[in-house]
Amino acid sequence: MASKKKSKPSKQGKGAKSGKGKKSAKAAKTGKVKTGKMVFYFGETKCEGHAGQKMLLGGKGANLADMVSIGLPVPPGFTITTDTCAAYYDCGGKLPKGLMDDVRANIRMLEKELGKKFGSDTNPLLVSVRSGAAVSMPGMMDTVLNLGLTDKAVEGLAKGTGNRRFAFDAYRRLINMFGDVVMGVDHHKFEHAFSAIKTKYGVKEDTQVPTEGLEELVAAYKKVYKDQVGADFPQDPLLQLEHAIKAVFSSWNGDRAIEYRRIQEIKGLNGTAVNVQAMAYGNMGDTSGTGVAFTRDNTTGENVFYGEFLVNAQGEDVVAGIRTPEPIAMMEKRFPKAYAHLMKVRAKLEKHYKDMQDIEFTVENGKLFMLQTRTGKRTAQAAVRIAVEMVKEKLIDEKTAIKRIPAGDLTQLLLPYFAAADKKGAVTVTRGIGASPGAATGKLAFTAAEAVERAHKGEKVLLVRKETSPEDVAGMHSAVGILTSTGGKTSHAAVVAVGWGKCCVVGAGELSIDEKAGKLHVNGRTFGRDDVLSIDGATGEVMVGAVKATIPEKISGDFAKVMDWSTKHAEMKVRTNADSPEDARRAREFGAVGIGLCRTEHMFFGGDRMDGLPVTVRLLDPPLHEFVPHEEKQQAELAREMGLSLEQVKRRVSQLHEANPMLGHRGCRLAITYPEILRMQIRAIVEAAIECRAKKVDARPEIMHPLVGTKKELALLRKWTEETIQQVCAEKGVKVGGKNGLDIPIGTMIEIPRAAVTADEIAECADFFSYGTNDLTQMTFGYSRDDIGSFLPAYLEKGMLEKDPFQSIDTVGVGGLVKMACEKGRAVAKAEKKAFKLGVCGEHGGDPASIAFFQKCGLDYVSCSPFRVPVARLAAAQAALKS
Amino acid sequence: MASKKKSKPSKQGKGAKSGKGKKSAKAAKTGKVKTGKMVFYFGETKCEGHAGQKMLLGGKGANLADMVSIGLPVPPGFTITTDTCAAYYDCGGKLPKGLMDDVRANIRMLEKELGKKFGSDTNPLLVSVRSGAAVSMPGMMDTVLNLGLTDKAVEGLAKGTGNRRFAFDAYRRLINMFGDVVMGVDHHKFEHAFSAIKTKYGVKEDTQVPTEGLEELVAAYKKVYKDQVGADFPQDPLLQLEHAIKAVFSSWNGDRAIEYRRIQEIKGLNGTAVNVQAMAYGNMGDTSGTGVAFTRDNTTGENVFYGEFLVNAQGEDVVAGIRTPEPIAMMEKRFPKAYAHLMKVRAKLEKHYKDMQDIEFTVENGKLFMLQTRTGKRTAQAAVRIAVEMVKEKLIDEKTAIKRIPAGDLTQLLLPYFAAADKKGAVTVTRGIGASPGAATGKLAFTAAEAVERAHKGEKVLLVRKETSPEDVAGMHSAVGILTSTGGKTSHAAVVAVGWGKCCVVGAGELSIDEKAGKLHVNGRTFGRDDVLSIDGATGEVMVGAVKATIPEKISGDFAKVMDWSTKHAEMKVRTNADSPEDARRAREFGAVGIGLCRTEHMFFGGDRMDGLPVTVRLLDPPLHEFVPHEEKQQAELAREMGLSLEQVKRRVSQLHEANPMLGHRGCRLAITYPEILRMQIRAIVEAAIECRAKKVDARPEIMHPLVGTKKELALLRKWTEETIQQVCAEKGVKVGGKNGLDIPIGTMIEIPRAAVTADEIAECADFFSYGTNDLTQMTFGYSRDDIGSFLPAYLEKGMLEKDPFQSIDTVGVGGLVKMACEKGRAVAKAEKKAFKLGVCGEHGGDPASIAFFQKCGLDYVSCSPFRVPVARLAAAQAALKS
Repeated sequence: MASKKKSKPSKQGKGAKSGKGKKSAKAAKTGKVKTGKMVFYFGETKCEGHAGQKMLLGGKGANLADMVSIGLPVPPGFTITTDTCAAYYDCGGKLPKGLMDDVRANIRMLEKELGKKFGSDTNPLLVSVRSGAAVSMPGMMDTVLNLGLTDKAVEGLAKGTGNRRFAFDAYRRLINMFGDVVMGVDHHKFEHAFSAIKTKYGVKEDTQVPTEGLEELVAAYKKVYKDQVGADFPQDPLLQLEHAIKAVFSSWNGDRAIEYRRIQEIKGLNGTAVNVQAMAYGNMGDTSGTGVAFTRDNTTGENVFYGEFLVNAQGEDVVAGIRTPEPIAMMEKRFPKAYAHLMKVRAKLEKHYKDMQDIEFTVENGKLFMLQTRTGKRTAQAAVRIAVEMVKEKLIDEKTAIKRIPAGDLTQLLLPYFAAADKKGAVTVTRGIGASPGAATGKLAFTAAEAVERAHKGEKVLLVRKETSPEDVAGMHSAVGILTSTGGKTSHAAVVAVGWGKCCVVGAGELSIDEKAGKLHVNGRTFGRDDVLSIDGATGEVMVGAVKATIPEKISGDFAKVMDWSTKHAEMKVRTNADSPEDARRAREFGAVGIGLCRTEHMFFGGDRMDGLPVTVRLLDPPLHEFVPHEEKQQAELAREMGLSLEQVKRRVSQLHEANPMLGHRGCRLAITYPEILRMQIRAIVEAAIECRAKKVDARPEIMHPLVGTKKELALLRKWTEETIQQVCAEKGVKVGGKNGLDIPIGTMIEIPRAAVTADEIAECADFFSYGTNDLTQMTFGYSRDDIGSFLPAYLEKGMLEKDPFQSIDTVGVGGLVKMACEKGRAVAKAEKKAFKLGVCGEHGGDPASIAFFQKCGLDYVSCSPFRVPVARLAAAQAALKS
Repeated sequence: MASKKKSKPSKQGKGAKSGKGKKSAKAAKTGKVKTGKMVFYFGETKCEGHAGQKMLLGGKGANLADMVSIGLPVPPGFTITTDTCAAYYDCGGKLPKGLMDDVRANIRMLEKELGKKFGSDTNPLLVSVRSGAAVSMPGMMDTVLNLGLTDKAVEGLAKGTGNRRFAFDAYRRLINMFGDVVMGVDHHKFEHAFSAIKTKYGVKEDTQVPTEGLEELVAAYKKVYKDQVGADFPQDPLLQLEHAIKAVFSSWNGDRAIEYRRIQEIKGLNGTAVNVQAMAYGNMGDTSGTGVAFTRDNTTGENVFYGEFLVNAQGEDVVAGIRTPEPIAMMEKRFPKAYAHLMKVRAKLEKHYKDMQDIEFTVENGKLFMLQTRTGKRTAQAAVRIAVEMVKEKLIDEKTAIKRIPAGDLTQLLLPYFAAADKKGAVTVTRGIGASPGAATGKLAFTAAEAVERAHKGEKVLLVRKETSPEDVAGMHSAVGILTSTGGKTSHAAVVAVGWGKCCVVGAGELSIDEKAGKLHVNGRTFGRDDVLSIDGATGEVMVGAVKATIPEKISGDFAKVMDWSTKHAEMKVRTNADSPEDARRAREFGAVGIGLCRTEHMFFGGDRMDGLPVTVRLLDPPLHEFVPHEEKQQAELAREMGLSLEQVKRRVSQLHEANPMLGHRGCRLAITYPEILRMQIRAIVEAAIECRAKKVDARPEIMHPLVGTKKELALLRKWTEETIQQVCAEKGVKVGGKNGLDIPIGTMIEIPRAAVTADEIAECADFFSYGTNDLTQMTFGYSRDDIGSFLPAYLEKGMLEKDPFQSIDTVGVGGLVKMACEKGRAVAKAEKKAFKLGVCGEHGGDPASIAFFQKCGLDYVSCSPFRVPVARLAAAQAALKS
């Protein structure tokens, strides 16, 4: 703020100064300023730009030209190019020669087209001035509206609109905006002046100030302006415009914009464009109005026009919700001509953009003006229906339809949810991380045992824990939802919940859980065992009491059609991560063609699984200490069973404790130190496969060794595995390999950075690789997924990470290792002429952005939790179509 | 054992069968058996092989030929080539045509040279048969001695030696060895027969059996042989030899040898050679004897002949320690002629091998026979003295001297140690991992506070803990040694101890420590606060009571000379990891030229440091929870100080607990989430540097950000760092950069796999990289250094790892990342034309094998703990000379 005050005569000087980067300094020396055509007009008179000129005209400018070029009624105006901004910096912060001449010429064209005049005391031309680079960028200059108002023009506006209060309200806004945004005046000064007027008239709200009060306010604002800027508020509209253009250019090198570009690594842009556009008023009486609409229903996807309209109002009023708008249908009655025009626009837009549009428009004295069109946001249900129907309507083809549906949103179609309307009345007491979508309402259970017991009695309970561990799995299964105070989206609770499609909120850090007392403290409130909470697994909201949940349909109709198209166009197969028959059945319904990850340790709590398709069984992975009891009661029980003293059991449990269990004695390290565990598991798999054969079930197990880091490990594990397969088959009189023989591929997870780096060595002993990108991400970044909650929010906020790398693969670092391992592995397999499969079984297997990356790596399949299977199928098709 | 019995007619069949690998099967088909010359004679008559033929003659064969060729008196014999072994397999397990003809011819030559005859009843020729590949390999056939004895020849031997008992003892040994090793007879059968004889004669020891008993034993052994093999013990010496040759060849593909080659990845070898050599007897009466010696004193390095001698004895007797040998000087009196010969041999050996030799010899009837020579093992002290003196003697040059001293052993010259003699009387109660060499004796302290308190009172205490943490540092410093029951060589205790050169034994898993009771339980014994233990930090031994320690000299004399040579020839600089003035002073004495790692968190316990040389200050690294008290008493104190409730402190401490702190909220993640900590540290460094300038001290700090994983992190940290430097300098009126300005390089640790993978991006923001290979190894392998103790021993034993990767860098995996990062970083620095330094500051910086690897990567310096500095200096010189 201090710097703003000092920046006389204007902010531009400062901006221009800070703009003296290496590049511009250099260009200034050589004197090479390539500007070309500096101003592009858009309107009925002519339209000089087009949609393809984003780099030159910025996104906004190109879009305005596009709308005009397809004949939409857009308020006319002109765009000053981004090259002109670059020239401004090359000149050391001066407008390039000839620019203002061009601007004046364009203003004259605008005046002519609209029959208005800059500064006129009867029918003044007012414009808005906006910045707009090729990439949307916070930190640049905001809009200046109503530019062109002067002491004289304000009278003209009052006459033209027949609304003096409106005219002076617009003028005081201009002085305020222009003073603050363009000239760097501290906005508190204006606020103090406004307060004084309100006090004088004894009112509290801005809207209650009468017309004479606003006239006095304009005078007061002009005084503030003069005191701060050292000059009168400019009474020449062109001078206002010149200052505003400079301010937009300067804002390109404002601290915030530079910081944003630095963090987002936005490079190769010239500068910002400046859009100058005539104002259109929906608040000029009952023949005017404003509205927003979708060209189709954005919640259901039905092909009906859908929107809201407000008579005698400006766009801001609709958004702000001050007045209740009418349904769009009412517009037909009030403005039949404008409505008919709008219907034509609607058809034209869908034909032009070949997608559902979200539009803003204004009716000024019965005439329709389009202010904006953009692709409309929609629910998953609408996305699917619109895509399928547009194919039927031959607006788009199948491939386009596939590309257009946001794959990640498909889970919405499978899970219960809280509709926004139903959440309105609820009190949100805190918010965690939405880890597994869905809606759950229940009483609180504080331990897994309690959850099991109460669920057994028919109660609906939410399991509330600091964090969960495999010991809690039974309780998690019994609960309707899971709420934890720590952990991120790939914490134990989240991963298990996503696998089951069970609603889960994690990392709700404000919770303080007193397990013993059975109390949950949060933000000054306390909840006990009989209190009901509702959790929204999509948004992370934790609400007091029961909120009504909505259950969507299953895969059928349009959704099934999209899934069929996906299978047709995808190159990668989609398997599932499943450890129980229930999961396997569900995943088959959703279209999975195999199991990519069957975690043996999860079978401690389940039964049996899939037929006729490959099933990759991962051998024991977790650290030993997860298999011993940590509570004294259970320790005592174990001691009794094993004939040991409680002390002995405790000592052993304490010996098994690890400082960093993630990097400890787990995975294949267990198999190597306790080969009997490995042999027992292999025997079980082989015996099961042989039993299935006897029952004419085509079981195709694949054995996967976890946490392999060196070739020597896999070589030894493979040897032991083959020995045990041979041995069991010999016992059962079954042939190994060859025609009709039992053939069990043996492969490994690639989840240790070293395994990726030495993938060529490891491939020599493997029939397949399956990337365990969860652990690979943990070790490549050095992030514990159980602990990341303490710094991930800050990292995302500060732009250190674009996304949670456990949700969407880090394509450069972790992905770099995956790519390296794919290339090395494939090269070895090619040289050895052996069959070799590459897959992924980390949570990234269900993430569309990651799936696109895996397509580039040439993986054969992705594997994800059952509820992500449809997402993965669509994403795989999208990835194939993009490659 | 069962398989051995079945293997009739002989073990060869089985061996040959298992030898049908892919390669040999292929060669057999093509029939291409390239054997060339199959037998190489060595003796006075002629010497056909030479030292360079290791691949063809095996190590042993080439060495025997070498000794003969320089005129040493070696019992003559011949070597059958490794190619012949390959041909044996190519022929499907048959001796190649013509081999036995060649063998017979060579036997004849041997008989002629020695005047003895195979099977003679007056003067029989006896030979030993040994395997010997190019690489020493356990699992292959052991020696067969006395081959050539038959019913007839044994009488000849009895006559020749005048010792009938000796002759029959030799014969029964042959039948036993031949039966067991060559023909696969279960050795228990022989043992039973021997027991029966001993019972008959009422004796307990083998040596008490009279001559007639041995004669009966020979008869009994022949019966066992016939029963088991199905044929008489061969009375044709040449047939014995043929069987023995086949047995050696077969043993090449025995299970153990194959397994050994698989694990050690020994490839490209043809097979084993067979060495047939005449026997020489030192036990033929008082004119015979045997001895071992070093050509110089192997403990002090003094140029004196040093060894032991035993009259009328065989080599085995010296090694077994049954009789007490005499000093070598006594030999001069007894065998003046043989001794004079030996002196000549000694001189010749040193001239030929240009190194101190470890020799074995036998005197048979006054004639000297050399049985073996090899480079002698020596203490570090001896290695240094011998190298320096040999340069003086012009036997070798400086470079050879440098290459020859085992760098890792130099620490022996700096630390107190328990001499083997002094340990003899002590009771070793358990053994841990020798983590930091040295010798320590003290009473037991069970907490850090107790150690500090008792040390303050003048007691010498050993700190005994399950594991140590930064809270224990003061106690560790006060103790004379540290003993832990968990952790490996890079656990907290080990790393801190090595840094201080303090004796430390970790991972003594048999210890059970009861901190509250102040008791240590181990293997049925209990030790309390007043009991004294002695720990050997080199071997890991834990001994009862006080053991005398020996303190070696400091750097001076020959040692200093070697260090000077090292500096002259090294390319990489050697810095030190030091956090206190004491460490810095010590490291300077040892020749460090800067500090490569100054850990700010360790300064919580220390003071100030180094002048005129670069000092790389690493910013705060450990997880937050290490800075809060974990014991209730201290928590209560903190609560009082901060005006909080104990509950609040406990809750916060529990919030800071992490599941995997190694992968948690630490390193630069702290700086990014708490920028005030970063700014405070930068301010302190800059203010200190400015104060030093005022005092005319040339302080050259370098600021190092730990745990960086992404370019964005370092970019932001660098920005904040530069801002703070600017700010402090502005306050103090000091210029930044330029001539005489304060110039502080800003760099990063490369210790996260992702940082290595994206080193090109990160290098854009860095003035230097310092590889933190400890953490990089943890994350690349997925091994927690605090938890590796539970599986590392099994991994080393099973050959999954060749070495502890925390001690010596894994050049393929972790090293692959280091190399990649070096290349990427240098390329960026080159493109940007900026100064860029590469160093390493993990514990690997003091490991010779790792230093050799870092030389290949082109690092500018290594940094290690003060006591490793001399090691690193020598290793750096060795690495430079080898590259």
